[in-house]
Amino acid sequence: MPIYKAPLRDHQFVLHEVLGAVEHARGMPAFADVDADTVNQVLEEGARFCSDVLLPLNLRGDEQGCRFDPASHEVKTPEGFRAAFDQFRDGGWQGLTADADYGGQALPHVLQIAFDEMRCAANQAWTMYSGLTQGAYECLHVHGTPQQKQTYLPKLASAEWTGTMCLTEAHCGTDLGLLRTRAEPQTDGSYRITGQKIFISAGEHDLADNIVHLVLARLPGAPTGVKGISLFVVPKFLPQGDGDSARVGARNSLYCGGIEHKMGIHANSTCQIVFEAATGWLVGEPNKGLNAMFVMMNGARLAVGVQGLGLTEAAYQNASAYAKERLQGRSLAAAKSGSDSSQPADPIIVHPDIRRALLTARAWSEGGRAFSCWLAMMVDQHRHHPDAAERETAGDMLALMTPVAKAFLTDNAFDGVSQCLQVFGGHGYIHESGMEQMLRDARINMIYEGTNAVQALDLIGRKVLMDGGAKLRKFGKLVQEFLAENATSVEMNEFVTPLADLGDKVQKLTMEIGMRAASNPDEAGAAAVSYLRVIGHLVFAYFWAKMARVALDHTSDAGTDPFYRAKLATARFYFQRLLPETAYHIRAARSGAKNLMELEAELF
Amino acid sequence: MPIYKAPLRDHQFVLHEVLGAVEHARGMPAFADVDADTVNQVLEEGARFCSDVLLPLNLRGDEQGCRFDPASHEVKTPEGFRAAFDQFRDGGWQGLTADADYGGQALPHVLQIAFDEMRCAANQAWTMYSGLTQGAYECLHVHGTPQQKQTYLPKLASAEWTGTMCLTEAHCGTDLGLLRTRAEPQTDGSYRITGQKIFISAGEHDLADNIVHLVLARLPGAPTGVKGISLFVVPKFLPQGDGDSARVGARNSLYCGGIEHKMGIHANSTCQIVFEAATGWLVGEPNKGLNAMFVMMNGARLAVGVQGLGLTEAAYQNASAYAKERLQGRSLAAAKSGSDSSQPADPIIVHPDIRRALLTARAWSEGGRAFSCWLAMMVDQHRHHPDAAERETAGDMLALMTPVAKAFLTDNAFDGVSQCLQVFGGHGYIHESGMEQMLRDARINMIYEGTNAVQALDLIGRKVLMDGGAKLRKFGKLVQEFLAENATSVEMNEFVTPLADLGDKVQKLTMEIGMRAASNPDEAGAAAVSYLRVIGHLVFAYFWAKMARVALDHTSDAGTDPFYRAKLATARFYFQRLLPETAYHIRAARSGAKNLMELEAELF
Repeated sequence: MPIYKAPLRDHQFVLHEVLGAVEHARGMPAFADVDADTVNQVLEEGARFCSDVLLPLNLRGDEQGCRFDPASHEVKTPEGFRAAFDQFRDGGWQGLTADADYGGQALPHVLQIAFDEMRCAANQAWTMYSGLTQGAYECLHVHGTPQQKQTYLPKLASAEWTGTMCLTEAHCGTDLGLLRTRAEPQTDGSYRITGQKIFISAGEHDLADNIVHLVLARLPGAPTGVKGISLFVVPKFLPQGDGDSARVGARNSLYCGGIEHKMGIHANSTCQIVFEAATGWLVGEPNKGLNAMFVMMNGARLAVGVQGLGLTEAAYQNASAYAKERLQGRSLAAAKSGSDSSQPADPIIVHPDIRRALLTARAWSEGGRAFSCWLAMMVDQHRHHPDAAERETAGDMLALMTPVAKAFLTDNAFDGVSQCLQVFGGHGYIHESGMEQMLRDARINMIYEGTNAVQALDLIGRKVLMDGGAKLRKFGKLVQEFLAENATSVEMNEFVTPLADLGDKVQKLTMEIGMRAASNPDEAGAAAVSYLRVIGHLVFAYFWAKMARVALDHTSDAGTDPFYRAKLATARFYFQRLLPETAYHIRAARSGAKNLMELEAELF
Repeated sequence: MPIYKAPLRDHQFVLHEVLGAVEHARGMPAFADVDADTVNQVLEEGARFCSDVLLPLNLRGDEQGCRFDPASHEVKTPEGFRAAFDQFRDGGWQGLTADADYGGQALPHVLQIAFDEMRCAANQAWTMYSGLTQGAYECLHVHGTPQQKQTYLPKLASAEWTGTMCLTEAHCGTDLGLLRTRAEPQTDGSYRITGQKIFISAGEHDLADNIVHLVLARLPGAPTGVKGISLFVVPKFLPQGDGDSARVGARNSLYCGGIEHKMGIHANSTCQIVFEAATGWLVGEPNKGLNAMFVMMNGARLAVGVQGLGLTEAAYQNASAYAKERLQGRSLAAAKSGSDSSQPADPIIVHPDIRRALLTARAWSEGGRAFSCWLAMMVDQHRHHPDAAERETAGDMLALMTPVAKAFLTDNAFDGVSQCLQVFGGHGYIHESGMEQMLRDARINMIYEGTNAVQALDLIGRKVLMDGGAKLRKFGKLVQEFLAENATSVEMNEFVTPLADLGDKVQKLTMEIGMRAASNPDEAGAAAVSYLRVIGHLVFAYFWAKMARVALDHTSDAGTDPFYRAKLATARFYFQRLLPETAYHIRAARSGAKNLMELEAELF
C-alpha cells in the first residue's frame, strides 16, 4: 500500500520563511485576522484528513472505478467515496476560501492550494469532485446574477451540491468555436439547452444531492466561432427556494449517457452528458460565455498544476522509503552513509542513480510548492488587495504564470513520478505498489484544462509577445531585485550566477522568437513548448535560489537543522542537474519552424 | 480501434539501401543463399500476419487480461490468443532463425528483428510468449548438452513448447547474487529444484503443450553471491523421447502461484512460479549459470529495445492519421499544405507543435530501425562469420551497443508514445484509442531485462571504462570513416558537422568520467544515465547521417521520390530538434557525483 504524509514542515518553510505568506495576507483587509497559528492548524488538520480518510481509498478506488448503470443513468463512485465526501462536507472544507456571506471560511487562497496539493497526493480522483465544485463557485461568484449567487453559492460552498464544467463536445475540445450545443430562450427568462457534452469530470455521481453544470452553448443567431458562445447554469435538479433553505425540486431533462474507460483517475466519473431541452439560465452576458468560463478555467489550470505537484510529492515519499528499505547490490564506493555490511546487500539508496531519480522528483516537488504557493498569493492579491496597482501586478503575474504552472508542473510530475516508479524496478509496474496508478493519474494532468501545448501557445502568444514582453519584464524585475540583494554573497554565487545567466538568455530568446513570429506566426508555435520549459526553469531557478538563501541563513548557525542541509543539497542538485535542460530547449526553440513545416502534410 | 501497417518500405530502405543487409549476409556461408526477394517476401508475409492476426487481438487482450484459476493453477490467455499462436506455429514463424537441424528456417537474425518490431507494434503482450521461447532456444543452443538440445530445441523452434527465464525472486531482481532457490542433485543426474520465482513472463498459459523453464538456483555448498548460481532446465511436463517424437510425460512439481496485476501488457501472464522439489537438469557448468543465462539476456535486451521501437512506430502511425483527420483550430500562418478553408477548421497537422510531437516519434522510430537492424546484423556476423576478426568486431559492437539499444530505444519509446498520445488530446487518455495501452505497455520495457539504469551502468562500466574505451573506439572508427567519405560534401555539411562535433565531445566526456571514476566509482554511477543518452545520440546521429546520405543521392534526381524527401526532412528534424538533448546530458554527466551523494541517506 502506498504511503503519504503531507510535507507540513516544507509547507511551513515555504509559507513562513520563503514567501512571508501571512504578512502578505495581513496586508489585505480581507485577511487582517489571519495568523501563522491558524495557517499551521488548518494545514495540520487538512493533512490528517488526507492521510486518514483520502489515502486509504485511493488504490481501491482505482481498482473499482466508477460504475455506470445504463438503465438509471446513474453513476456509483467507489466504496467509501461517499462517506469521505460526507466527512469533508461536515468538516466545512469545501468552503475554506469561500465568502463568509455564503457560509465560507474566507481564508486566503494560498491555504487552499496547499490543501489541494495534499488532497491530490492522497487521492486525485476523489479530489476532483470537490475541485470542480470550487471552480463552479468561483465562476458564479464573479459572473452570476444576485439571484443565482443566492441560490447556488451556499450549496456549492458547503459541498451539498457539486459543480462541473461542460465545454467539450465530441468534435471540439481545444477549438471551442466549433461547439454546437444550443440554447433556446423561453418566455420565463430561462433557456432550453440541447446538445451532447463529453469528458465531463464529475458529471454524474452519488456524492451530493445536486450537480450544477456550467454549460457552454449557442444562442439562436449567435455569431459563429468563439464569439457566439454563451454560458448557462443547468442544474441536475431544479432548485426551489434559495440560500440555506434552497432544496432540490424537479429532475431536469439531462442525463449521463455513459462514462469513459480511461488510463487513470478511474474513480472520477468522466461522463457524456446529454441535454435534451434541459432548463438552464444565462450566466453573464450573451456571447461572452468563454470569458466567463475562463474564470473557472484559470483557477482550474493552477489546480491541475497542483494535482501534478501532489503526485510528485507522493511518488517521492514512496520511492525514498522504498530506496531506504530495499536491499540490492553493494555501494561501489567506500563505506558511506546508508551502507551496512551486516546485511546481505545495501539499501539501494547508496546507488548514485537511485539518488538522481529521487532528487529529481524532490526538486520538482519542492520547487513546485514554492511556485504554486506564490501564485496562490497572487490570486489573493489580485482579488483582495486594496491597492489597484498591486491588484494589477498580481493579475499580470497570474496571467503570465498560470500556463507555466499548469504545464511545467504537470510535465515535471509525469517525469518525476516515472522516475520514482523506476526506483521500484519491476515492483513499480505492479498495481499494489501504487506507483503505476500515480503515473496513470499524472498523465491526464498534461491534457485536461487545455493541453500543455495549448498552455505553451498561450504563454508565448497571448502572455508574452502580445504585450511586447511587459508581464515577463515584471517577473524579471523580481529576479533582478533578488540578484541585486545577493550580488556580493560568495556563498550564493553558485545559485545567482546561473539564475542571472538564464535571465539574460530568456531575454534574448524572447526577442528572437518575437522577431521571427512577427513575419511568421508559426515561429511562435514552433518554439512554444521549448520556450515554456525555459520559462519554467527561470521560475524554478528563482525560487530555488530564494530557498537556498533561507537555508544558507540557517546553515551558518552552530546547530544546523538537517532540514536546511537537505534543502541546500536539493538546491544544488536542481542547479547542476535539472536547470541544464535549458541548454537543450533554448537550442530547440531557436531551431525555427522550418524543420517542422517543410514536410507536406500527406507525407506524415 | 488503433491501426497499424508494417512500414515495409522503410524496412527495405534500411536493409537494402542503408545497411546492405543482403550482401552482408551472403558474405557468410550460413546465409549464402539469401537474396533480397526472400527477405522482402518474408517481411511482407510477416507484416500480413501482424496486421491481420495480431493487431485485432491487442485492445481486447488488454481489456480481458490473463485469468488465473487458483484451484487448477492454470492461466487462461485472452480470447483469440491461442488460435493466433496456432496460426503462428503452423506458419513456422517461431523457427525463422533456428537451425535447420532443429527444424528452423536458418534465416539471418536481422529478419527476426524486423519481424519482432512488427509483432510488438501489433501486439507486444502476445509476442512475448514467442520471444521468451526464442530466448530459451538460444540459451540451450549454446549451453545445452547434446541430449538437451535433441529434446528441447525442435519443440522450441516449432513453438510446440514455449520457454521462460526464471531469475527474479521477491527479494532479488537486479542483484541476483541474493537468490535462494536451491537445487539438490539426485542419483540419476537430475536435480530437485525448490524455491519461488516472481515476475516470470509467460510462466503459465494455455498456448502450448509444455513450458520449458530456465531456472537460476544454487547447488548445495555453492559460493555465496553471483559465483554460486547455476542454470537448470525445468519443464512443466517431463519430456519423453526426444527430437520430433518427443512428447510430454508426467507433470513436474512446479506450479503457478498467481499472476500480477500490472500497469500494462495485461495479456501476458506475469507469474509467480513455485518449484517444490521439481525435476530439473543442469545447463552448462555448475556455478556458471549467470554466464549461461546472459546468452538469453543479451538477446532479450535487444528484443526489448525492439519492443519499444515497435510501439513507437505504432503510436506514430495512429497519431499521424489522427492529426490529418481531426479538425480543430486554424493554421496561424498563411495558407499551407493541409489547410482547407471549405472545412470548419483545419486538420491539426497544420499546427507546428503537433508536427513536433509526430516528428519526434518518427525520428525515434526510423533511427531505431536502422540501429536495431544493424545490431541484428552484428548478431549474425558474431555467430556466423568465417573470419574470427570479423566475429570479434561484431561481438564488441554487440557488447557495447546492446545496453544502448535496450535503454535508448525504450526511453525514446516512452517519450514518443507519450507525445503521440498527447496529439489525441483527451481522446488519447481513453482506452478505445489504443494510445494509453501503448504507453502502459511501453513503460515495462524500461524496467525488465535490467532496468535502464542498469543498462547505463553496464555501458559505462563494463563496456566502456573496463577496456579503456577500446570498443567505443571501434564504433568511433565507423563514424570517422563515414565522416571522411563525406568531408567534401556541401549538402552533407548540416549532418556531418554536428556528428563530428558530438564524436569529439563523447571522447572528452568519456576521458573525464574515466579519470574521475578511477578515484571514485560513484562518479561512473552518477554519470551513467546521462552518458548513455549521449552515446545513444551518437549512434542515432551516425545512422541518421547515413540515411540522409542515401536520401540525398536520390533527391538530386529529377523525379524525386517523396519517400526520400520525407527521410531528409526527418533527418533535419532529428539533428536540429532532438540531438541538442546532448547539450543537457553532457552538462548533467559532467556535474559529478557530489550533488547526488552529499545528502545523508536518512534525509531523503
